[in-house]
Parts: sequence; C-alpha cells; structure tokens
Amino acid sequence: DPSLKVFTLNSNKGLAHEITEHIGVTMGKSSVMRFSDGEVQINIEESIRGCDVYLIQSTSAPANEHIMELLIMIDALKRASAKTINIVMPYYGYARQDRKARAREPITSKLVANLLETAGATRVLTLDLHATQIQGFFDIPVDQLMGVPILSDYFKEKQLEDVVIVSPDHGGVVRARKMADRLKAPIAIIDKRRPKPNVSEVMNIVGHIEGKTAIIIDDIIDTAGTITLAANALIEHGAKEVYACCTHPVLSGPAIERIKNSKIKELVVTNSIVLPEDKQIDKITPLSVGPLMAEAIIRVHEHASVSTLFD
Amino acid sequence: DPSLKVFTLNSNKGLAHEITEHIGVTMGKSSVMRFSDGEVQINIEESIRGCDVYLIQSTSAPANEHIMELLIMIDALKRASAKTINIVMPYYGYARQDRKARAREPITSKLVANLLETAGATRVLTLDLHATQIQGFFDIPVDQLMGVPILSDYFKEKQLEDVVIVSPDHGGVVRARKMADRLKAPIAIIDKRRPKPNVSEVMNIVGHIEGKTAIIIDDIIDTAGTITLAANALIEHGAKEVYACCTHPVLSGPAIERIKNSKIKELVVTNSIVLPEDKQIDKITPLSVGPLMAEAIIRVHEHASVSTLFD
Ligand SMILES: Nc1ncnc2c1ncn2[C@@H]1O[C@H](COP(=O)(O)O)[C@@H](O)[C@H]1O
Ligand SMILES: Nc1ncnc2c1ncn2[C@@H]1O[C@H](COP(=O)(O)O)[C@@H](O)[C@H]1O
Repeated sequence: DPSLKVFTLNSNKGLAHEITEHIGVTMGKSSVMRFSDGEVQINIEESIRGCDVYLIQSTSAPANEHIMELLIMIDALKRASAKTINIVMPYYGYARQDRKARAREPITSKLVANLLETAGATRVLTLDLHATQIQGFFDIPVDQLMGVPILSDYFKEKQLEDVVIVSPDHGGVVRARKMADRLKAPIAIIDKRRPKPNVSEVMNIVGHIEGKTAIIIDDIIDTAGTITLAANALIEHGAKEVYACCTHPVLSGPAIERIKNSKIKELVVTNSIVLPEDKQIDKITPLSVGPLMAEAIIRVHEHASVSTLFD
Repeated sequence: DPSLKVFTLNSNKGLAHEITEHIGVTMGKSSVMRFSDGEVQINIEESIRGCDVYLIQSTSAPANEHIMELLIMIDALKRASAKTINIVMPYYGYARQDRKARAREPITSKLVANLLETAGATRVLTLDLHATQIQGFFDIPVDQLMGVPILSDYFKEKQLEDVVIVSPDHGGVVRARKMADRLKAPIAIIDKRRPKPNVSEVMNIVGHIEGKTAIIIDDIIDTAGTITLAANALIEHGAKEVYACCTHPVLSGPAIERIKNSKIKELVVTNSIVLPEDKQIDKITPLSVGPLMAEAIIRVHEHASVSTLFD
C-alpha cells in the first residue's frame, strides 16, 4: 500500500527497523541532524503528499531532545501535505507528571499531549501509559497497546512452577492481576506503609509467597529503588526466587548498580526504550515489541480494531 | 506593585537578576530541577494568583532543553492562576528556521510560536528577531526591542574617526543603515556572489572603506564564518581597522578560533546569550541589555509604549 509510510527519529531506530521489516515496507527517507548550534535540522527526503505517515519515536531520555525532534518532524510532515500523522510512541515521556501532586506544579503529560496536537499529530499509538487517564489528555484518537501479554508469554515459556505475581505497590495491582490471569497464578502485593511520619517504611506483604517463585511486575522501572527493595523483602519473607519485569526500562541513576546487587534473578523488559551498552547486563532480558507495534500499525491503517490484538 | 512578578529559568540567570534589580523587585521563587531520568521538575514556590508574571528565558543552546523548560514553566504558571504570562525572551532560538528554504522542511520558528501559545503565553517581549516576520507567527502581542542603540552608543563613546558601517550581506543592510544613522556614518555592503556554480565566491565591497574604520554589524554571529571573512576582505581592500558587533553571540563550533585568528580588532555583543567561560576572550566585549529589558517590562506593565524606548 503506497499510501502507508513509516518514518523514524533518533530515539529507537532499532525498533523502528524491526517494525518496517515486519510490515514489509522500506523506511521513509529523512535526514534528522543538528545545526552547528545544536538546533534540530530536519528534511523529509521523499514525497508524502496524501500519505498516512507513521512516525516512530519514544520520548525517553533525553526526553526534551526527543520531544522537540518529534514536534519539528510533525511540523515538517504537516507542511509536506501528509494526509494523517500517526505518532508511534512506545514510551511516552513525562507520563508521571500527570497530576498536580503539589500546589503550583505543571501537568507536563497534558502539556505534551497539547504540543503534539498543536504540531499536527492526528493519532497516537502507544504502549502502557503510566496512567490510562493520559488518553483523555488528547482530543485525537489514542490507541494503547499492552506489554503484559509479551512479558507473560516469556514467563510462560520458562515453565516456572508455583508462581506468584507481585505488585510492588498499591497502584500496580490491576496490572499484576492481568499478568496473573495469563499465567493462571495468584497475586501478592507489597503493602508499604509509614506507621508514623519520619519513621521508616514497613514492607508488609499481602498474599502467600513462601516457597514460591515471585514475579514482580511494574510499568516503569526508573531508579529501581522500589523494585529492588521489594525483591529483597520477598526473599526475606521466604520466596524461593524473585524475577522482575516491566514494560519501560528507564533505568536512570543508580538503577543498574541496584539491580546487580539485588536478589532479582532476572529482569525482563521490552525495547520500548533502548538500553545503551552500559545498561546491557546479564541479568536484564529485553523482549521486542516490534511485531506488536507493527501489527497495530497495520490494523490502524486498515481501520481494524487494535484491542483484539490482546484477545 | 505586588501584581508584577518576575521569574527566571536557567538559560540566563545573570541577566534575569540584572532585570529584577533594575525594576526593584525580588526574583519570584521557583525550583527548576531535573528528575533522575532528566525530565524537568518545576515547582512555583509562591502564590501568583491574579499576577502579571514576566518569565525570563533565552532559548539559546541547548535550545531544546531551554524551550521545554519554558513550556513546562508556562504550564505551571497557567495552572497556578497567573493573570498574564509574559515571556521575556532576549534570544529567540530557531529564528533562522523561519521559512521553507527547501521542500519538506519544517518552519520551526512558527512551531515554537504555536507551542508557546498552546502552553499559555499571553505576550512575548524579545530582542532583534532574525526576521521581523516572526512577530506575525504569533496571535498574541509581540514587542521587539532593538540592540542597535546599545551597540551604537558603545561605539559612539569610543569616538572613533572616519567610521563606515558595514553589512556583511545583502539581508543586513537595513540594520546597518540604522546604526549608520546613529553614528552619522556612511554604509558599505559586502556583496558576495558566486560567478558560476562550483566557482568560489567573490567578496566584492560596495561603498568606500579605504583608510576608514569599519564596523561590521549583524544580528546573530554563529560559526563566525561570514563575519571573519568579511573582516579580512575589508582589511585587504584597505580598511584601516575592523570592529564587529552583533546582538546575539551564538558563537558555536569554530567561532571562537575564527574570531581569534581574524583581523577583527574587537567584537561587541550583548548578553542576550550567556558567554560560557571558554568563550570569554579578550577580543569580545559583552554589553548588557538588562536595563533595556527591565524598562520594557515596566512599560508593558504600565500599558505604555515600548517603541518610544528607541526615540
Ligand atoms: N521523571 C520523573 N521521575 C521521578 N518522579 C517523577 C517523574 N515525573 C513525575 N514524577 C513524580 O512521580 C509522582 C507520580 O508517580 P506515581 O505516583 O507513580 O503516578 C509524582 O509525584 C511526580 O511528581
Ligand atoms: N540553527 C541554525 N544554524 C545554521 N543555519 C540555520 C539554522 N537554522 C536555520 N538555518 C538555515 O539558515 C537559513 C536562513 O538563514 P538566513 O538566510 O540568514 O535567514 C536557512 O537556509 C536555514 O535552513
């Protein structure tokens, strides 16, 4: 279908090429460079008049650079007369700034939604938003894919016995439940609470984990504080072994050291965010969301349902 | 006037403090930091309900970081119920991407205008836009200040004799004329042209420069290629000495080396862009636009004319 064009920016070119290979199209030609002063210089190098353009970019770190690249490319596509501009954003940066946790804070994930629309995006295809409410920040269609099936399938193939799926906090229970359904396993919850102000947190565990293989699931692992403390608490409370998984491996600051030094046996992630070489350690297994994103693009392009991908 | 609040971001704090001192207000309290993954974390730390906020940020390099900081801060100010959000932007980044020079290019300076409005800016106060047309990219009021008076006054005080003001290219003649009026001097133009494709450019000079003190004026000096070639051509054609000046010292890449090795005696710039330490060389004299920007803020706040600042 010559009206389907896929372009990529710089955040995740490996994934972008997996996607074009899976769809069976060649990558759209564009040059995304920098002027001498660091300003983004973009040129689209083939005609896209009347085409449905799918533009791949995770707004992972450096988030500001990746967002500006994306906005400028959308502007160029719009001015080059693209029919639709579909943003394929495996990782949606600033998703955690989704509400005013304190007075006089910005709501940056709403801002980013507005910026994308202002630039000219007509649709967003994303994966595991930190809060599903972010869909409502847009006035254009947003399709959200799920990482749980891919992560679950990986653990299914491992044929682990006596598994329990663990949510590292109260907010993640729905996700843990979804994974547990797929693995036909029970769930447990790390029930952190602070008995009094200025007293350190108590790591209580709700559910049976003794002698079991625990799999902790989260959407984002950033500094890995929560997940490594959870893993160690699980072992202390008698879990046989602890795996962990997440969709988005942000892994900033002390994350890699913490994971190395933790009781986590294996951390399974997706390639929604590229792991630079210094983060590619033995304990971390990246799974590809390339085929999933490619299938979703094909369905969107054929006006077919994306949600049936998870049936 | 307690309804006037000035805040600053990170691009140009020195200038921002000059501005608050000149106005006689204390700097608005805010924290502008980074989360562990590099995402911008902003909090406004005093009430601004119903206030007229003036937010100071040049979108100089790193332009993308400075633009995102600015947009996020505007979002926070808007949600904190500022009455007006006035962006004080001594240097407007991406100003040179103001038209499609080739097919399928973005027009990033228009995009940035749209982004600022989307975030919630209600007015822009800027200095020497690369193209005055950029004012028309906004649907909110834009006041543009001029660097020429400040640069001219500096040279007036030097009491140089037999001066000629030189435009380094055809596009800069209007600016050169303005400076020449103030210094009661004639103008000359570097008339670069390429006789045939793939033949190197000829540096012709229109106007009398022999035995004179030439002052080259430009709006932006970036890699300093144009200006240093112009200076050397002027000397070759018999100019006695060559000064140069500009409003915005971008000075990227080879700029400093080129200036050091050129025939330019002194380069006079403004502090619309901070000169990092490695760019603070003897040949470069920075002048402050602090008092000018402060006066403009006071006038805007009093609903008085800004253009009379240049009478
Ligand atoms: N990039 C970030 N890194 C760490 N924390 C963040 C980031 N962005 C937002 N937050 C904070 O994370 C909290 C939201 O996290 P959650 O409760 O998991 O939804 C809010 O208090 C935010 O201020
Ligand atoms: N940051 C930048 N650095 C160098 N050149 C640029 C930059 N942004 C835009 N341009 C180019 O500069 C030209 C406009 O410069 P001018 O003719 O001086 O208005 C256009 O061809 C742009 O592609």
